[in-house]
Amino acid sequence: MASAEQKAEELGLSIPDYSDPPFGARYGRMKPFHRIGNLVELAGLTPESRAGQRLHPGAIGVDVTIEEGYAAARLTAVHTLGMIRYAVGSLDNVVSLSRALCFVVCPPGFEDLHLVANGATDLFLDVFGEEIGSVGRASIGATSLSRNNCFELWLSLECHPETSL
Amino acid sequence: MASAEQKAEELGLSIPDYSDPPFGARYGRMKPFHRIGNLVELAGLTPESRAGQRLHPGAIGVDVTIEEGYAAARLTAVHTLGMIRYAVGSLDNVVSLSRALCFVVCPPGFEDLHLVANGATDLFLDVFGEEIGSVGRASIGATSLSRNNCFELWLSLECHPETSL
Amino acid sequence: MASAEQKAEELGLSIPDYSDPPFGARYGRMKPFHRIGNLVELAGLTPESRAGQRLHPGAIGVDVTIEEGYAAARLTAVHTLGMIRYAVGSLDNVVSLSRALCFVVCPPGFEDLHLVANGATDLFLDVFGEEIGSVGRASIGATSLSRNNCFELWLSLECHPETSL
Repeated sequence: MASAEQKAEELGLSIPDYSDPPFGARYGRMKPFHRIGNLVELAGLTPESRAGQRLHPGAIGVDVTIEEGYAAARLTAVHTLGMIRYAVGSLDNVVSLSRALCFVVCPPGFEDLHLVANGATDLFLDVFGEEIGSVGRASIGATSLSRNNCFELWLSLECHPETSL
Repeated sequence: MASAEQKAEELGLSIPDYSDPPFGARYGRMKPFHRIGNLVELAGLTPESRAGQRLHPGAIGVDVTIEEGYAAARLTAVHTLGMIRYAVGSLDNVVSLSRALCFVVCPPGFEDLHLVANGATDLFLDVFGEEIGSVGRASIGATSLSRNNCFELWLSLECHPETSL
Repeated sequence: MASAEQKAEELGLSIPDYSDPPFGARYGRMKPFHRIGNLVELAGLTPESRAGQRLHPGAIGVDVTIEEGYAAARLTAVHTLGMIRYAVGSLDNVVSLSRALCFVVCPPGFEDLHLVANGATDLFLDVFGEEIGSVGRASIGATSLSRNNCFELWLSLECHPETSL
């Protein structure tokens, strides 16, 4: 069975490198992740590239379609893969993703937040498979996010004990 | 003193069984919980039954009263008891609830989010007592939640070390 | 190099005492924090004093300026220092802050949530320095918060293993 790193390569994903330049400089001195034992808590990630380019900014159901929101959530998950590599060295050092809060910018009455969040969690399943890549999830409607991004992901995971810091 | 399982029975709570059918099938392949050491992180829960029936959907302060929101939050906590059983086998394997993010669908200017969230946290106190059942809490106003649910709970807890996975 | 307690004194911060009276009485029987191993999860904190006085209530971008929001976020972080002392005895028992969800009450289209959240995270950097005090962060637009507060912080941290409970 293909490892997560092999799957990411097969899928041709363009995974950003958060070590160069180190994450956090643009928004002040933010930390990319923190590890306590085998628990890794990641900073929030968005569909914004390291260069500041945003995919489908705005509110889903207003400026952005569900399909575009799904694509933005999927790109956010690809960014998250880069952050996971930065945190634990390799996607193959993940024992299991734990859970993901998915913030979706949308107006009152919008009901399909889960269809947007699927963009992120489907990508995790594609790369890690079901045992490692499925997450506990909640999808929460936000009024807005920094720089008008339409989606933000807040993920925790478990890494192998022998992963060096 | 009555155990949490005894209290749940005394209160006549109708606690859903998340093992049959296994949680996660309806919204894609979601994970119900993940345990790292003695930390258990649960997926988001709502006042929606396993069959898809929702209690008081809509926005509190608009379509739903505070009293109805309280009832929806209480039902969400009952659902959470089912998820806790699924995660650690029995309510009596909980050392302590840790903290709960309470998402409340409400419009700008609504000030009584805590009165809604009390529905969930009062139920936890009723079942687990104060030492085990009190939680760190925040109540956050959301524009919307999946399938128009009015409340969502995001809980972490500590289980007994000897709890088998 | 000055310790976090020394820095807090140098800065002349007025840090509330959450042990007297014990936290949680006003909003029901809430828990201020929970510790699992070296992970400490804090309850949500706001720019509301122990006596119930709120700094700059309302929505940022509507009733409250970004500068006022920054001040409210900074005050929230000062409150958080009091909660950290309550949880682990001293600011000097913090190995590292882990991550902070920053909820910002703001209307759709507001883009500068990070400028508000900086108020909290800048204070942490001032007190703890970059190695200990930087956090993983996400800034989320809420419709409202309890009692019309404009900001709420949801923080996790790592404490020294020898910290007594």
